[in-house]
Amino acid sequence: MKIGFIGTGVMGNAIAQNLLKAHHQLWVYNRTKSKTDNLVALGATWCATPQAVTEQAEIIFTMLGFPQDVEQVYFQENGIFKAQVQGKILVDMTTSKPTLAQKIAATGQAAGAQVLDAPVSGGDVGAKNGTLTIMVGGQQTTFDQLQPIFQAIGSQVNLFGGPGAGQNTKMANQIMIAGTMTGMSEMLVYAKAAGLDLNKVLETVGGGSAANWSLSNYGPRILKEDFQPGFYSKHFLKDLRIALDTAAEMHLDLPATQQAKDLYEKLVDQKHLGDLGTQALIKLWWD
Amino acid sequence: MKIGFIGTGVMGNAIAQNLLKAHHQLWVYNRTKSKTDNLVALGATWCATPQAVTEQAEIIFTMLGFPQDVEQVYFQENGIFKAQVQGKILVDMTTSKPTLAQKIAATGQAAGAQVLDAPVSGGDVGAKNGTLTIMVGGQQTTFDQLQPIFQAIGSQVNLFGGPGAGQNTKMANQIMIAGTMTGMSEMLVYAKAAGLDLNKVLETVGGGSAANWSLSNYGPRILKEDFQPGFYSKHFLKDLRIALDTAAEMHLDLPATQQAKDLYEKLVDQKHLGDLGTQALIKLWWD
Repeated sequence: MKIGFIGTGVMGNAIAQNLLKAHHQLWVYNRTKSKTDNLVALGATWCATPQAVTEQAEIIFTMLGFPQDVEQVYFQENGIFKAQVQGKILVDMTTSKPTLAQKIAATGQAAGAQVLDAPVSGGDVGAKNGTLTIMVGGQQTTFDQLQPIFQAIGSQVNLFGGPGAGQNTKMANQIMIAGTMTGMSEMLVYAKAAGLDLNKVLETVGGGSAANWSLSNYGPRILKEDFQPGFYSKHFLKDLRIALDTAAEMHLDLPATQQAKDLYEKLVDQKHLGDLGTQALIKLWWD
Repeated sequence: MKIGFIGTGVMGNAIAQNLLKAHHQLWVYNRTKSKTDNLVALGATWCATPQAVTEQAEIIFTMLGFPQDVEQVYFQENGIFKAQVQGKILVDMTTSKPTLAQKIAATGQAAGAQVLDAPVSGGDVGAKNGTLTIMVGGQQTTFDQLQPIFQAIGSQVNLFGGPGAGQNTKMANQIMIAGTMTGMSEMLVYAKAAGLDLNKVLETVGGGSAANWSLSNYGPRILKEDFQPGFYSKHFLKDLRIALDTAAEMHLDLPATQQAKDLYEKLVDQKHLGDLGTQALIKLWWD
């Protein structure tokens, strides 16, 4: 297929590589052009704007940072919707606002395009290995049509409902992680203050009804003072803000998620540690 | 061995049964006498007071509800310390205050007894199957001496330090669970409000980096509206209060745990649902 890929950072670049491996033709754009160099070397064609990418391709993927980047790439000067999108498929993989996903879907449909929101989890490793979890919102027929392509980049791919449902599922996922990250951090803070052997505590607490992925993956890294990002704190804060904004629109009060957001806000905005991994939350206590 | 067992509720009764199966001689006491009937039928001897149990046995276990029960059973009229405890071993398995564990240890040692705090996790199933996780605080020599007995009732048994270290490890465990329970509840609340298929969400969210024991065990029960206690909400609230009191004594601020405590307080004190399982937290939103 003729595929466009806009946003070739760590995640997007790895996904785009898998699309090239699956023998698709690629047109690529990234704000920092050098991040497309490896893809061009593998056979992709560089384009100067999102609009140019869209003009060349039949299916256009976007994998960007923040909702405002998505807004810009789709709607502004030289953006996707400045091209003729009739008959094309637009897929936003950025973790972004459900309402923005719905706006893109409505605009796309009005112009004769099919639109999916398809945020992912599984991190850079999942992107590299083509084992991402892909949470999709949109039409069943579009979802079915894209199955062969999704299978080249993910291993667990599900449709959760209409436009925005993929984003909402991703938000649910992040709300759950807010609980494991805050719980793990405060658990370690308590255990250290109580003078316990933290390795032994991780083993015991991680072996029973408190067991969770964050604890078994990030716990040992924290004890080694490894705060390198598997997932950036600044991006997790963005996700929690979207989740809480969307919850507020649904008239939901989520106080534990709110508390988690406040803590990550301190980490990112006050301590300026947004480029560290989410496990750096413990630095609010241990610095 | 001649073993005393004080507190034969769901957990204590199951543990006492395993001690009888391991061919120990048992003297038992419970505030509600009828809860010792099955143990007496299996060969245990009923005693009228904790003091009387202590006079008969060499090793005395307590498994009670709240720290005030522990205080009473050890220190008050007809309590353990009204007996001669010289040469005996006292083991409190109640999840209780680290400072109370230290007070019992000091009082016991002054009277020539050895003392351990040994709270457990693993629930009624673990108690029944003899597969409890036992978190021990106290002297290494006492811990070593009790190994054969601990092995009859638990599968993961570790010493974490001096008096109170078992309780502190259990508190760390509960702080972690506070995160998974609040995260899971708010995740489901959000997903339902967004109109997502909750079974599908549980499968996807539980399959990646948000995976945790609470989600995989309580998530399906919540969707079936099964709020029967694996672990009572009122007991979890007690644990969170102890954890936060102890944290405050250590000059620690644990805002996410505080938030979890506030939510369980609403559930137990305002909605009077303390006799439901911890998964009933979702009733704060879904009632």
